[in-house]
Amino acid sequence: MAFSERVTRLKSSLIREILAAAQRPEVMSFAGGLPAEAMLPALDWAGMPTSMGQYGTSEGEPALRELLAAEARALGIACQASQVLVLSGSQQALDLATKLYIDKGTEVIVEGPTYLAALQTFQLFGAECLSVPLGADGPHIDALRARLEQHAPAFVYLIPTFQNPSGVRYSEAARARVAALLDEFGVTLIEDEPYRELTYDGGMAAPIAGRLRKASWVYTGTVSKTLLPGLRVGYLIASPDLFAHLLRLKQAADLHTNRVGQWQAMQWLGTEKYRQHLGELRGFYRERRDAMQQALEQHLGDLADWHVPQGGLFFWLTLKQPIDTRTLVAAAMAQDVAFMPGEPFFADPDANPGCLRLNFSHVAPHRLQEGVLRLAHVIRQAQAAQAAA
Amino acid sequence: MAFSERVTRLKSSLIREILAAAQRPEVMSFAGGLPAEAMLPALDWAGMPTSMGQYGTSEGEPALRELLAAEARALGIACQASQVLVLSGSQQALDLATKLYIDKGTEVIVEGPTYLAALQTFQLFGAECLSVPLGADGPHIDALRARLEQHAPAFVYLIPTFQNPSGVRYSEAARARVAALLDEFGVTLIEDEPYRELTYDGGMAAPIAGRLRKASWVYTGTVSKTLLPGLRVGYLIASPDLFAHLLRLKQAADLHTNRVGQWQAMQWLGTEKYRQHLGELRGFYRERRDAMQQALEQHLGDLADWHVPQGGLFFWLTLKQPIDTRTLVAAAMAQDVAFMPGEPFFADPDANPGCLRLNFSHVAPHRLQEGVLRLAHVIRQAQAAQAAA
Repeated sequence: MAFSERVTRLKSSLIREILAAAQRPEVMSFAGGLPAEAMLPALDWAGMPTSMGQYGTSEGEPALRELLAAEARALGIACQASQVLVLSGSQQALDLATKLYIDKGTEVIVEGPTYLAALQTFQLFGAECLSVPLGADGPHIDALRARLEQHAPAFVYLIPTFQNPSGVRYSEAARARVAALLDEFGVTLIEDEPYRELTYDGGMAAPIAGRLRKASWVYTGTVSKTLLPGLRVGYLIASPDLFAHLLRLKQAADLHTNRVGQWQAMQWLGTEKYRQHLGELRGFYRERRDAMQQALEQHLGDLADWHVPQGGLFFWLTLKQPIDTRTLVAAAMAQDVAFMPGEPFFADPDANPGCLRLNFSHVAPHRLQEGVLRLAHVIRQAQAAQAAA
Repeated sequence: MAFSERVTRLKSSLIREILAAAQRPEVMSFAGGLPAEAMLPALDWAGMPTSMGQYGTSEGEPALRELLAAEARALGIACQASQVLVLSGSQQALDLATKLYIDKGTEVIVEGPTYLAALQTFQLFGAECLSVPLGADGPHIDALRARLEQHAPAFVYLIPTFQNPSGVRYSEAARARVAALLDEFGVTLIEDEPYRELTYDGGMAAPIAGRLRKASWVYTGTVSKTLLPGLRVGYLIASPDLFAHLLRLKQAADLHTNRVGQWQAMQWLGTEKYRQHLGELRGFYRERRDAMQQALEQHLGDLADWHVPQGGLFFWLTLKQPIDTRTLVAAAMAQDVAFMPGEPFFADPDANPGCLRLNFSHVAPHRLQEGVLRLAHVIRQAQAAQAAA
């Protein structure tokens, strides 16, 4: 049995094990990133033409591409529908970008922390992921400049708005500085924006892709966080020099994205119905965010530091006494509490102990207090044991 | 701009150009492999639970996996639902198998001719594709044995039932001999079966995967040819030693397959409604196959040889006077006729001139005669020009 060399990097995933275990109904799960079931809109399929069952184009449905391009232009990204590629979820943008850029040993720049499924995909193909630490308003600019001066990365992968896992939203100033650096060094930007619309306290900052004057870019989004993940409809928009390659890679991967999901997405994007739905979603999640904040203050205030996330789906906690949070998973699960340890969100997990990601969108409010209380006990016990050792 | 090394193998595709040009309504197209629009069933979405909009499992919907496993067992493949991975179309099986097995220079065995999108995917990752010639009843067994003796291929990729492009269905004897060889050499089988149910003259032969005693295997299918391609629902079933790897690769590619399409597929598979639909489909395509056979006999009988396909969607013609059929594309298109040249279906196109693939499922019957007549003229003119040169 001779597998490819890359399969040696296809590790078994702690995350998958946690998510699988978290599905037991008795578990209070802060682990996943699932939308609340209550906020999944009912679907109307009346009027979908039978022709949506036929093979479609690899690029995606023309009307959907137009809607997505118009939305991006409204965010300041100068683009045409011809630059839009509809995807089977925005995870696919990572697969295609990886195929386009990464050979074994290729260097790429990521945030520290960053989206772990991106890390896994880049590393599967042999990328060397170089981290730039993330602060409350964006990446450390000096560190980013140093990385760009000392390396020749294939791309910089950023999640500037309500990042998973940290919840960080880059400031206007940080966005401008990052764009200027990418232009200066001529390095491609992969900008991942699944959480842009999940904003709870107002304010808004335009994408970095729209600020670039020279560098190539891929901007990617999805309807999974705002409409329905089960449709598997995401998209990328790329600078014209990249588009044709990404299109061919999409075709080789799965020919095209499912048309029934695309048709359904078209019934929502840009409509008054969708605006209303987004408003309700923000209100619903804001309440859950606030309830989580209250529970955390009550039970974890002396154990951890955090910023209140202004959007997205996660709290990111930093323990005052760092401890490898992967060692807490089993004890928490024994108490029917699931959370996501922070270490796997870093390119170098062992060098970054002591963070936790807690999802606030999915857990039922009446179980929230109890879950956070139990988690606090687990942390206290582990830290006491560590101190005693 | 530094792309990956594999992108140098991402060629512009003659096939894509032909298919794009063939979409002009005035074109009589024998080029694609599209189901007939008239045979796309109307869909009923009533009863789909809202929860189908939520994230699903990477493996696929449990009930669908059970249905697909039961169908495979009925074909003689001993398997459980736990070995079924639902895919975003069966093209994705090629992407995942490629990631699992192929590094630059990895040898794989394919039929000559074979499915060209498989060739493209394997070659994109750097595979050396070794051909085994295909006869009327299956591959040349001595040639396959010689390949296995002289090389150590990562896998053998076969389309044993109504192959695209050749229409060949392996005999029972050929299947048994191929299975014995794969077991003898311990080489993995990738068995691609999108056309199994499109059978017009009776007879049936069980998959090769079910005949293996030792070798690893991946069996892949789809609902695209029998139900609706636009759903993008395919699947693979794998021997247990391969399944976990393929599952993780699927997760890295697009998390999971769209659930609305999976739910729709579940409404059909194994039902009386589906059996009826398949019966109507076979009748419809049988008529179109027979009409094409008649037109070919009338206009191309002196120019080419072929076997009448007993299933699938294609006639495969071999010109009596070989000529590179890629050189006929422009002249045919000028006559508003599209066809698929045969050369790109071979790992070594230039060594295999003189075949054409003609689809019979999509062209409207009243345009069939005229299209074939025009194609015959184009071939005659090119051969006359060649003889005069």
